[in-house]
Amino acid sequence: MRAVRMTSPGVLEQVAVPTPDAGPGDVLLRVGAVGACHSDLHLLDAPAGMFPTPITLGHEIAGTVDTVGPGVTGWSPGDRAAVYGIIGCGRCRACLRGLENQCRVVAVGGIGLSRDGGLAEHVVVPASRLLPVGSLELEQAAPLTDAGLTPYHAVELARPNLRPGTSCVVIGIGGLGHMAVQILVATTAVRIIAVDTSVAALDLATRLGAHEVVQAGPDTVGRIRAHVGPPPDGADVVLDFVGADPTLTTARQVVAVGGRVMRAGLAGGTLPVRPVADEPPTLPLETSVEIPFWGTRAELQEVIALGRLGLLQADVQIFPLERAPEAYDLLRRGDIHGRAVIVP
Amino acid sequence: MRAVRMTSPGVLEQVAVPTPDAGPGDVLLRVGAVGACHSDLHLLDAPAGMFPTPITLGHEIAGTVDTVGPGVTGWSPGDRAAVYGIIGCGRCRACLRGLENQCRVVAVGGIGLSRDGGLAEHVVVPASRLLPVGSLELEQAAPLTDAGLTPYHAVELARPNLRPGTSCVVIGIGGLGHMAVQILVATTAVRIIAVDTSVAALDLATRLGAHEVVQAGPDTVGRIRAHVGPPPDGADVVLDFVGADPTLTTARQVVAVGGRVMRAGLAGGTLPVRPVADEPPTLPLETSVEIPFWGTRAELQEVIALGRLGLLQADVQIFPLERAPEAYDLLRRGDIHGRAVIVP
Amino acid sequence: MRAVRMTSPGVLEQVAVPTPDAGPGDVLLRVGAVGACHSDLHLLDAPAGMFPTPITLGHEIAGTVDTVGPGVTGWSPGDRAAVYGIIGCGRCRACLRGLENQCRVVAVGGIGLSRDGGLAEHVVVPASRLLPVGSLELEQAAPLTDAGLTPYHAVELARPNLRPGTSCVVIGIGGLGHMAVQILVATTAVRIIAVDTSVAALDLATRLGAHEVVQAGPDTVGRIRAHVGPPPDGADVVLDFVGADPTLTTARQVVAVGGRVMRAGLAGGTLPVRPVADEPPTLPLETSVEIPFWGTRAELQEVIALGRLGLLQADVQIFPLERAPEAYDLLRRGDIHGRAVIVP
Amino acid sequence: MRAVRMTSPGVLEQVAVPTPDAGPGDVLLRVGAVGACHSDLHLLDAPAGMFPTPITLGHEIAGTVDTVGPGVTGWSPGDRAAVYGIIGCGRCRACLRGLENQCRVVAVGGIGLSRDGGLAEHVVVPASRLLPVGSLELEQAAPLTDAGLTPYHAVELARPNLRPGTSCVVIGIGGLGHMAVQILVATTAVRIIAVDTSVAALDLATRLGAHEVVQAGPDTVGRIRAHVGPPPDGADVVLDFVGADPTLTTARQVVAVGGRVMRAGLAGGTLPVRPVADEPPTLPLETSVEIPFWGTRAELQEVIALGRLGLLQADVQIFPLERAPEAYDLLRRGDIHGRAVIVP
Repeated sequence: MRAVRMTSPGVLEQVAVPTPDAGPGDVLLRVGAVGACHSDLHLLDAPAGMFPTPITLGHEIAGTVDTVGPGVTGWSPGDRAAVYGIIGCGRCRACLRGLENQCRVVAVGGIGLSRDGGLAEHVVVPASRLLPVGSLELEQAAPLTDAGLTPYHAVELARPNLRPGTSCVVIGIGGLGHMAVQILVATTAVRIIAVDTSVAALDLATRLGAHEVVQAGPDTVGRIRAHVGPPPDGADVVLDFVGADPTLTTARQVVAVGGRVMRAGLAGGTLPVRPVADEPPTLPLETSVEIPFWGTRAELQEVIALGRLGLLQADVQIFPLERAPEAYDLLRRGDIHGRAVIVP
Repeated sequence: MRAVRMTSPGVLEQVAVPTPDAGPGDVLLRVGAVGACHSDLHLLDAPAGMFPTPITLGHEIAGTVDTVGPGVTGWSPGDRAAVYGIIGCGRCRACLRGLENQCRVVAVGGIGLSRDGGLAEHVVVPASRLLPVGSLELEQAAPLTDAGLTPYHAVELARPNLRPGTSCVVIGIGGLGHMAVQILVATTAVRIIAVDTSVAALDLATRLGAHEVVQAGPDTVGRIRAHVGPPPDGADVVLDFVGADPTLTTARQVVAVGGRVMRAGLAGGTLPVRPVADEPPTLPLETSVEIPFWGTRAELQEVIALGRLGLLQADVQIFPLERAPEAYDLLRRGDIHGRAVIVP
Repeated sequence: MRAVRMTSPGVLEQVAVPTPDAGPGDVLLRVGAVGACHSDLHLLDAPAGMFPTPITLGHEIAGTVDTVGPGVTGWSPGDRAAVYGIIGCGRCRACLRGLENQCRVVAVGGIGLSRDGGLAEHVVVPASRLLPVGSLELEQAAPLTDAGLTPYHAVELARPNLRPGTSCVVIGIGGLGHMAVQILVATTAVRIIAVDTSVAALDLATRLGAHEVVQAGPDTVGRIRAHVGPPPDGADVVLDFVGADPTLTTARQVVAVGGRVMRAGLAGGTLPVRPVADEPPTLPLETSVEIPFWGTRAELQEVIALGRLGLLQADVQIFPLERAPEAYDLLRRGDIHGRAVIVP
Repeated sequence: MRAVRMTSPGVLEQVAVPTPDAGPGDVLLRVGAVGACHSDLHLLDAPAGMFPTPITLGHEIAGTVDTVGPGVTGWSPGDRAAVYGIIGCGRCRACLRGLENQCRVVAVGGIGLSRDGGLAEHVVVPASRLLPVGSLELEQAAPLTDAGLTPYHAVELARPNLRPGTSCVVIGIGGLGHMAVQILVATTAVRIIAVDTSVAALDLATRLGAHEVVQAGPDTVGRIRAHVGPPPDGADVVLDFVGADPTLTTARQVVAVGGRVMRAGLAGGTLPVRPVADEPPTLPLETSVEIPFWGTRAELQEVIALGRLGLLQADVQIFPLERAPEAYDLLRRGDIHGRAVIVP
């Protein structure tokens, strides 16, 4: 079969590989759609030895069951499913609670990360990783598994603070942020303040239900405070889907006492936590800074439910498998709007 | 009456002032005991204008009701009570939930902070700030209101992670830390790892129920990891009652994926939050860094319950009112063991 | 001033009484609107001695501040406010947590219940009972305080089970139920199944966003199960705003294992809890039956926020004060659609 | 191998059966100890057809890994483990959250219930059902899986109400109740009031840490109220491990407004829920009645942690396999003290 693999560190190419078999507990899936994620670029850019090579990339997968391995029940050929990409140890404190994204044994393991992923005609996954998607288009189902799940998880963690009448600042209305706005609209009655440098992104946020938009630029903080109130008041929750120094600085300056900064973006910025010092403190008291990572199988089930209810839709741009390397180039240059989805 | 006041920025002295009256909703309390807190030193060291002067210090108060003002019900002369020191606006989102330590209007306001406190023979407090203490000694009740409440609140915030079989690292076994160990013993079944530079402090921690002790020094991180496991495993919760750069560095290096760093100490250190970058990340994914501040009235009620059940006791060192300035000098020099309590 | 009072057990009449004064901590409110509630009929029907007489009824109040008593801050004449009707002891475990609807000292106390209420030109209330309503019409604000708050509280209690993709059965689309549907639409992504005997009520439910409607009649249980699945599956939450034997029987037969029956209606039915016996059990395992009562001040703030965001509106029918007795007669006969609101 | 089976409805006998093999994902366990549970008597007494026959009973199992089936990782021959007895569908909303005791597909399924259990020399279980027990004696580990897990789960559900200074009434200090007392002592600072008809049981409760004991008899309610306060005050939580009409009547009469009645016992009693009616209501407002069932894998891990920390120990009475039928006869007659444990 055809597969797009990182054949050696930093090298992505389409190659021919044998079609794998489904072992005990596994399912062979015919891949229907795979999202191209920024974290794939992290794999490509990582130093040699940090990730195994060769490896087929692709961890945002939806497809159709082809064959099932020994011991698998509940799945039959033809069933349509989305793939939960994380594979925890299954035995630690976190995994027993369904928090495989916090596995105490496997740091960051999963399909397309530590074993072959979905950028191929077929992929083998443990049956326990599959979730039914009903009549959802596979091109829509695939991005739900990461671009949908990651902001959903961040919202879930912050949900105790997202009560009617509170305010939530969403920084970065890109692949994840435009999903976050929809998730907030569907599941809360908070006031949403969207922040981005791009007018087009802010227009999208408004169409999706954001109540206020702020174009990042001079006095971003002041203009957000005009909506959420000055310290010690402020935003109850800030979701930062960028994670660069300037966005983190904005986040910590507009969060209310008792609020939460959810640092979902991985742009390499540093948020210094220092409540009291000679200089002004960096954050209000009673705040938390949290580093959400992906999500849980149970949350993915809920994200798919939102998709099936018509409450959550990804903006997608479709590429055939052979153009996958080009899609990643566009992603790296910032030329993908919404989510690039590759269809083998 | 006699009162120990900050008469001008940085100057603490005993003076004579008129005994105040209880206005509508207020109670005049005969002060029985007042704890001397590090945050009083912050007031004394603050730049001119940051806090009002003259002001009677003392926000860790227990006493006996002397007279009640108009409209007060439920309290009578002779009733013994502890004082909840924070006075929020009473109307904001936080105050309505009983989270006055997160008041959206009054940043840090309260008895002995923005109005006269307990270092005097009498103090006026709103009746709503009083909690009955039963037969608890007032010298014991006073430190519960801050030295007991602050670690209790930090534990409360982290309680979802403090399940049987998890581990909690307590850094700094001083006035607050020695209360934290007792609170963990009384209300959880976690394994407690106590960390301090002082052997005497660690001996105290062991007597109070800590399961392991680690003397801070070379390879503190390695020795804690020997108890809690190496990354991505580690401590489920780290309570840092120091908050200096070295303790925060230790905290973030021993916390498990999915764990919580509770930064309760105010020694001015900075914890940089950066999950992914060219350098090694500073914290595991799915962790949070939180800045607990004091606590709530409801939590104080529970702290007092622990005291009344004999499960929480402060080590106290008693001073008469006229020696209050000396007590603060000793506190500043690190020569107070446990809590200094001033008895007018 | 004019007031509509229960002058003796069961007797409701308009009388002239002196305008009261605002004591310490109190506010004199000029009444703008008062909702007529079924529980007022309970007061009127109660045996002599159970409630004090004479008493001005009316516990669903919105108005304008007229004068403030000694010691009141934060409120000025002309401010528009809704009234939280419960007055707890303020000192017990429940009140300290803001759960005055669970006060351990005062069983059912409050404005219009144990002291004079709002069916008058003026009413005195503790300032702490007031919440600002912004530009909301007072006729809309008044019903939020009970007809809005009671279902909101029931939804809040059940919220951990109200996740995207779950189902909620709402029985009784009357004064409270039609608010519940709106609250579910605004704050969750659950599938709503509305149940009522009246086609008009079901049409209203559909207009407000219910996904399915079931007219109560033969095989109500079977028709609900067609939407939520047969045992051990079923509805994640059932909100019963009737509380009669037939509705409670329906509720317990359609709730899923692990689900919750919220018994908000007070029609006097009995739900027998018996998980295992010779006969078939009455409820699935892991279910709970809960008796929500009114709500909290913090929840009322959120209900008002929903109203101000345009997400929650009561159907109201306006009566002048002198026609209040007639409004209650209509209410008793079931001839009020939505909420009767009396405007002095 | 030898096995004790229900060969036909109501008939329990030791027979010889082939030793089973471990299929894909399964483990063959050498049985070390099996607890004899009241629910086994329910199986024996059930009408023909309700449970499959022949079936090897025994769902409270600890043992040693003998062989592992294809696809099993993480377990090796010689590993000592306890068995989580429930096998949910693994795919429904409840199972994805780790709440297999609320599985929406399999009503009550599991090892020794719907497939062969542990009353034999060997038993086959899915590897995912195993939890490591460290150096715990297998005779101690076995009862933790049900007699320990069931009360732990009931306490977990009620934990938000089990705060320092609250009170918890434990009715029935038998196999489950004596574990409940230890769990409360180890993980909370609540005041424990133990209730039983037997003086010996109450003495045991006192030794285990109960603060008050009440021998059931005339005026049980009054004597409990003397400890927890009269209505609307009362016990914050009532754990009923009997579940007969008299114990349920006591439970609902001593629970506080806002409290919880956890009905863990299955003696067939009925608790009528009726908050308001002509007669006195049966329960205070804001209370819940809950029907906990067994527990989750994650909770079992915590129960085992308590056992390993020395905080939870079952009183056990040991029987060899051939005397298993006799052990059940004694259990039925109430002549087992603590837990009967059968050692093949």
